[in-house]
Amino acid sequence: MQPLKVNAERLWKSLMDLAKIGATPKGGVKRLTLTDLDRQGRDRFVDWCKAEGMSVRVDAIGNIFAHRPGVDDSLPPVMTGSHLDTQPSGGKFDGAYGVLAGLEVVRRLNELGIKTQAPIEVAAWTNEEGSRFVPTMMGSGVFASIYTAQSMHAQKDVEGVSVGDALKAIGYKGEAKPVKVGAYFEAHIEQGPVLENTKTTIGAVQGALGQRWFDVEVTGQDSHAGPTPMELRKDALLAASRLVVETNRVAHTYPDNARATVGHLRVSPNSRNVVPGAVSMTLDVRNAKDETLLAMVEDLRKSAKAIAAECRVTIDIKEVLYFAPSHFDPKLVDSVRSSAKALGLSCRDIVSGAAHDAVYLNRVAPTAMIFVPCEGGLSHNELENARPDEIAAGASVLFNAMVAAAGVVGEAKAA
Amino acid sequence: MQPLKVNAERLWKSLMDLAKIGATPKGGVKRLTLTDLDRQGRDRFVDWCKAEGMSVRVDAIGNIFAHRPGVDDSLPPVMTGSHLDTQPSGGKFDGAYGVLAGLEVVRRLNELGIKTQAPIEVAAWTNEEGSRFVPTMMGSGVFASIYTAQSMHAQKDVEGVSVGDALKAIGYKGEAKPVKVGAYFEAHIEQGPVLENTKTTIGAVQGALGQRWFDVEVTGQDSHAGPTPMELRKDALLAASRLVVETNRVAHTYPDNARATVGHLRVSPNSRNVVPGAVSMTLDVRNAKDETLLAMVEDLRKSAKAIAAECRVTIDIKEVLYFAPSHFDPKLVDSVRSSAKALGLSCRDIVSGAAHDAVYLNRVAPTAMIFVPCEGGLSHNELENARPDEIAAGASVLFNAMVAAAGVVGEAKAA
Repeated sequence: MQPLKVNAERLWKSLMDLAKIGATPKGGVKRLTLTDLDRQGRDRFVDWCKAEGMSVRVDAIGNIFAHRPGVDDSLPPVMTGSHLDTQPSGGKFDGAYGVLAGLEVVRRLNELGIKTQAPIEVAAWTNEEGSRFVPTMMGSGVFASIYTAQSMHAQKDVEGVSVGDALKAIGYKGEAKPVKVGAYFEAHIEQGPVLENTKTTIGAVQGALGQRWFDVEVTGQDSHAGPTPMELRKDALLAASRLVVETNRVAHTYPDNARATVGHLRVSPNSRNVVPGAVSMTLDVRNAKDETLLAMVEDLRKSAKAIAAECRVTIDIKEVLYFAPSHFDPKLVDSVRSSAKALGLSCRDIVSGAAHDAVYLNRVAPTAMIFVPCEGGLSHNELENARPDEIAAGASVLFNAMVAAAGVVGEAKAA
Repeated sequence: MQPLKVNAERLWKSLMDLAKIGATPKGGVKRLTLTDLDRQGRDRFVDWCKAEGMSVRVDAIGNIFAHRPGVDDSLPPVMTGSHLDTQPSGGKFDGAYGVLAGLEVVRRLNELGIKTQAPIEVAAWTNEEGSRFVPTMMGSGVFASIYTAQSMHAQKDVEGVSVGDALKAIGYKGEAKPVKVGAYFEAHIEQGPVLENTKTTIGAVQGALGQRWFDVEVTGQDSHAGPTPMELRKDALLAASRLVVETNRVAHTYPDNARATVGHLRVSPNSRNVVPGAVSMTLDVRNAKDETLLAMVEDLRKSAKAIAAECRVTIDIKEVLYFAPSHFDPKLVDSVRSSAKALGLSCRDIVSGAAHDAVYLNRVAPTAMIFVPCEGGLSHNELENARPDEIAAGASVLFNAMVAAAGVVGEAKAA
């Protein structure tokens, strides 16, 4: 089959329509998971799917699956999707793009009268962001048996509302059971600057970086900045700052897409003329290879030990999260590359620095992702933006990769 | 005259009595300037002074002067004092010690029947701490004509109450005019660890470090910690951390009691998986010599420029305070040394890292300070503590230095 393109205007219009639900004055979207705004977004998506003749099921954690039958409907579906929830100061594209790109694939299949051998499904995963309820990627995590639905139902937001009650309140606590998935694709904005910086339209995502997150407590002794000579200080901020510098060194030293970040740091007592007695900080270390990730962490632990001794403070490092690196299915990644090539789009291999629902799907099904550029690499921000032509390009790549995976029966009507 | 000692128990009891006014559950004192608790503390001090036959005057900014006549009462008084206000989480000794050590000097002079040639005065300076109203050292600043009383009356606390109104409310807005001071002494806890660390009882304070304070704004670009490669980041916290490390290097490199501190640092957006886009921090640089202080600042500015270029951020450094280094009167400092020696007390020269009322008095009168150790160098803290024998030792040194400065007439009664 010749490569086909989706309807760019229709996709963009749906994205803008959905973005009105929870729209913020600054042009972003606040649609926290399992709120009434989330319900409105879900209802809109379900209505659109039903208008395309799809059947819709909902599972125990509120994941929505819209089903377009295959010629052999007993085959495992070729699935795509992402999430409809946003960060508190979120944008129009993170998550919504992957769901509506899937819807656009179905709309295009329908208008072209294309029948696929295997069924096509579009999923909207519950609570990818983790802003209201932890953990992140809750819905895909339950689908992939990382968590049980029951344990997730008990998770509560800061106001004490449980996931179970919130699901019931918005009418999205269903009973659908997990199905075997033939192939899973997810289209997403890159949320980073690499595609834009290299003027590339399509990122063929090879996998996602492994992550290890830490909480770090530096304990020294606060003292008067004036009367305390340098040699008698136990300056927790000096030690913390040296650890920040070491974190950066380690990320620059190791191969395999090494990244390391101190994003959060709090000083105590945090007064202008007091030598800081304590610092709490976080450490986020990422790498495409598990063994390199571990080597980075070991290097940092050694540095911390030396710094603690030299600054006469204690440094306590506690791991709070581990995600193994993900390696997506080589055949599906290759299908993304060849779809891009067939459409005449620039394409480069890329590794996802962030986790996505696809990371959990990858544990139970052959998986690939498609990245498109976002303006300035900005995401989780009301100013998040993307170009309509590139948004459409990613969806066209998705269309062709899904059709190839599902198998085409007969000939398409005239496009 | 042979060296005489003060009454250690009486001095300690007065300190403990005063500390009941504003006592905190943790054993500290909260007696913010110009509050009703401050009034109670002032009233207590005034009552004690009057009981010793002293006359009391109050000036326009609320400074209290208790006067013990000299044989030639027209001579400029030999003055001592400190402040009765505390930090919000203050201790029993900071300020109160200097005032009550002065009172104890008078009590001892009275019971020994010693007449001095010049009058003796004990001062309680208004608002040394600057916790409720800025600037710090307001009362001594007005006395030394650094500020006018009128401009200080207009200063307001966070609730909008002015110094002028607060002075009236507690009945301490007086009309006394500044007088010429023959010599000024101030006894104070060290608020640092040097005397304790060197097992020394008396610090003969040669002067106070000069200070330059800065507000620093580091501006980069926040971005996702996962998807943003190291080489494309503009990490404000990395730049800030390198500046903290440089600040420490500079303080260790320069002579003349160099000290430099980053006490306050705030990260934005301060989220675990976001590369920080902005950091606000402070810089506190101190040195005993003005030219070395300037050289330190120039060194730091150069470092900041290099760091900004390397981290692709901007670093804006704004000076917010300058105190010139103080050099106390060599004869009076020597008198402190010889009093300590005559009393058989260990003594070492020391430079005050912090500013005190004595720093402003030094601008209008020959001045010296006497430091005694405090436990662990801890001050501005409810756990602030000192040993009764060392508290008394400092007051005995003060007694003899003041008597020497004022001149003795006749012989003392039996001690």
